[in-house]
Amino acid sequence: MTKIITLSREFGSGGRELGRLLAEELGYTYYDREILDIIAQQTQMEPQYIEKSLEKGVNIPLRYGRSFSYYASTSPNTIKLLVIQQAIIKEIATKSNCVIVGRGANAILRDYSPFSIFVYADMESKLARCKRRAPAGENLTYKEMKKKIKEIDGARAKEMSLLSNLKWGDKENYHLCLNTSGVDLPNIAPTVAQYAQYWLGG
Amino acid sequence: MTKIITLSREFGSGGRELGRLLAEELGYTYYDREILDIIAQQTQMEPQYIEKSLEKGVNIPLRYGRSFSYYASTSPNTIKLLVIQQAIIKEIATKSNCVIVGRGANAILRDYSPFSIFVYADMESKLARCKRRAPAGENLTYKEMKKKIKEIDGARAKEMSLLSNLKWGDKENYHLCLNTSGVDLPNIAPTVAQYAQYWLGG
Repeated sequence: MTKIITLSREFGSGGRELGRLLAEELGYTYYDREILDIIAQQTQMEPQYIEKSLEKGVNIPLRYGRSFSYYASTSPNTIKLLVIQQAIIKEIATKSNCVIVGRGANAILRDYSPFSIFVYADMESKLARCKRRAPAGENLTYKEMKKKIKEIDGARAKEMSLLSNLKWGDKENYHLCLNTSGVDLPNIAPTVAQYAQYWLGG
Repeated sequence: MTKIITLSREFGSGGRELGRLLAEELGYTYYDREILDIIAQQTQMEPQYIEKSLEKGVNIPLRYGRSFSYYASTSPNTIKLLVIQQAIIKEIATKSNCVIVGRGANAILRDYSPFSIFVYADMESKLARCKRRAPAGENLTYKEMKKKIKEIDGARAKEMSLLSNLKWGDKENYHLCLNTSGVDLPNIAPTVAQYAQYWLGG
């Protein structure tokens, strides 16, 4: 049986970086956007189109006044892609030891006994990280960035609720929740890897 | 400056055992019920009386129908003891490196930069642990034990809300949240100690 780490994270908390570090540390295969490429290969669709479709269905919040809402219905295309993504996640999880970031993998792989991590941080740290790592040309104010963080996290929560009855970010659904505020990720990765390794049996 | 680990925990999750193991592993002083003895020395009151008073004020939930409620007012004696306990926790925290279990220490010591852990587990694991560790003569059914667990945790949450505006068990208020379901504590203690040590600076 393969060893699987799933890593869910708040936007800006450094979860993706930690995922990569854990994969390197343990010699596991790392999956994040790589999953989009696999869907593209299988469906002959463009990765950008797939990404957009998946986002369109589950990731773009609408606003009504001061509260959030979401598209009431998910397009058939998006549902199809979610189903394909689900199958691919199950497939890669049985192929080799791996770290899978996001995509509701901890819910999808529930029966495969993954070690599931949730990474979070305080807003100040997330804003600082987003500022440091902003793509060239993006020049959001802190207020706009905060809004973006909340929207993306809201969409992740929504995606999880479509996939399962688990609540995104509820500590009960994870084996380890890590607050990365003020933490240097390369410094903690070996210890987290060691903990995961204990949990996954050696 | 001393190094401080605070450990909050759900009843039955093994938090106290983990606290002891961390203290041993790191050579830190361990405090839990020891704090009652210090209050007793300072006040010349009986530890049992102190414990009861602290419990009476913040720890005994009342039931109204199917929901919980608490004593609306906290007795002056309890408030006095809470204030003394708070001062003692601050005193011991500056005396030597330590692990402090429960008593809202993470809220009380907020300005002392403790490394704060929250330990939790699924209900099944907590029930199994309580069954294994039940005091001689206690023979609760699983239903009664579940009720006890919920009551004690409710009281801990209440204590925290009296001490601060932090919400007990909210992962945002801790640096590390550990799910101990199915975990052998002596096996994980060294890794957790290592993580704490990194966080506390060496």
